Amino acid sequence: MSRDAIPIHVIPPTSESAKAGGLSGNAPPLLRELSELLRKLLSTGESSAIDLSALPLTPADLDWLREKLGEGEIAVTLQANGESTLNETACPGVWWVTHRNEQDSVTAQFIDVTFVPELVKAHRQDVETGLEYLELLISDL
Amino acid sequence: MSRDAIPIHVIPPTSESAKAGGLSGNAPPLLRELSELLRKLLSTGESSAIDLSALPLTPADLDWLREKLGEGEIAVTLQANGESTLNETACPGVWWVTHRNEQDSVTAQFIDVTFVPELVKAHRQDVETGLEYLELLISDL
Repeated sequence: MSRDAIPIHVIPPTSESAKAGGLSGNAPPLLRELSELLRKLLSTGESSAIDLSALPLTPADLDWLREKLGEGEIAVTLQANGESTLNETACPGVWWVTHRNEQDSVTAQFIDVTFVPELVKAHRQDVETGLEYLELLISDL
Repeated sequence: MSRDAIPIHVIPPTSESAKAGGLSGNAPPLLRELSELLRKLLSTGESSAIDLSALPLTPADLDWLREKLGEGEIAVTLQANGESTLNETACPGVWWVTHRNEQDSVTAQFIDVTFVPELVKAHRQDVETGLEYLELLISDL
């Protein structure tokens, strides 16, 4: 049988039934992008982030993506002018990051591809301030 | 006046009234040790940990220490054979770490002096496994 004779059906990223559920079809390609970014992390150590707010994703897309990525073992909350959560997904190295304002509204969502998100690290300058605070504590003993 | 004539009173680390509250006097020197460890972190980048379970500290000592160190902006929970919590204190770079078993009993407590606790970082091998998982997801789309 020649190759030309094989009937080829181009499968769209999402089925019609999925579209009916509010899926735009823009989420599945993100999984492919994440796998590329994970490869880059492993080969070069370079971290990346996908700004979900900047993409044409529906709430259903976000739910689908989050469900596919699953839940990991590590959950981080950061309190700074509203709460941010940085949750490891079931793919270690892939973190779901949500920033909220003081009224608890979501202001931004990212997927970080990194061994550990920068936001979780103490900054050198803050550690220096912390040391001063500790010395003040000690001098008051 | 000769040195021998100076009456020397050795001041214990904690007052009698503090002792009455269950304090052993072993907690305040830990603050001094932490300030040394923070200096080392800043000058060499080297992380340290104090195993609180290995020291003669009373529950009141632990409460005193925790209150003195205060609460920071970052709280991490890690689910792995029981819950571990890694809470930044009000001194950035100083983390209060509590490990619990599956019955929710505290099994160990540490103070970590580090920019970010090792436990929060995704391990290379886990990221490699995560990438395989993601590729499986993609092949199922």
